[in-house]
Amino acid sequence: MTQNKDYTDCYAVIFTSKRTNFDEEGYQKMANEIENLIQHQKGFLGMDFGKDSLRITISYWETLEDIKAWRENEIHQKAIKNGQKKWYEFYSIKVCKIEKSYDWER
Amino acid sequence: MTQNKDYTDCYAVIFTSKRTNFDEEGYQKMANEIENLIQHQKGFLGMDFGKDSLRITISYWETLEDIKAWRENEIHQKAIKNGQKKWYEFYSIKVCKIEKSYDWER
Repeated sequence: MTQNKDYTDCYAVIFTSKRTNFDEEGYQKMANEIENLIQHQKGFLGMDFGKDSLRITISYWETLEDIKAWRENEIHQKAIKNGQKKWYEFYSIKVCKIEKSYDWER
Repeated sequence: MTQNKDYTDCYAVIFTSKRTNFDEEGYQKMANEIENLIQHQKGFLGMDFGKDSLRITISYWETLEDIKAWRENEIHQKAIKNGQKKWYEFYSIKVCKIEKSYDWER
């Protein structure tokens, strides 16, 4: 869990994927292996993923000004206030510059 | 779904959160409202989140060289090859520079 760590000036690799129905057992074995392996990798700081009730939402924006405008949106501000009052134990927001983008498709 | 779009030079906001058990109905109503609202926001390009079987995994790294070294790791390379052969319909990798980081906790 990367909660309460300041990753400013570090890098995020956002990985999104959709599973086939094929070979769940093999997939899980590989996933566990990779998850153990990455812990020992130089420079590895931590990882967030959407299991164990951690929700991840990523939005994409043209400019930092657009992000600021969205943050200041009145209904969004109300949602943030209600979220802090009621819905969230914690949350973390990271604004990142996308330096490389690569897609693979079957 | 942001599959097959090139977000190079755009920005990603990575949002991670953990829900309380409180007011699921209110949360869903707010989430739907925000999800509709954001579509009309200037500069909004798209959004990925971990429902509807889209998996999101984010890893954090000290340097771009560290990311490259992990990509070239032999077992990781084998996992990539097996993933393309068996496990994935598609995937997308985005390497981002984290420009701001903010955490909130109850």
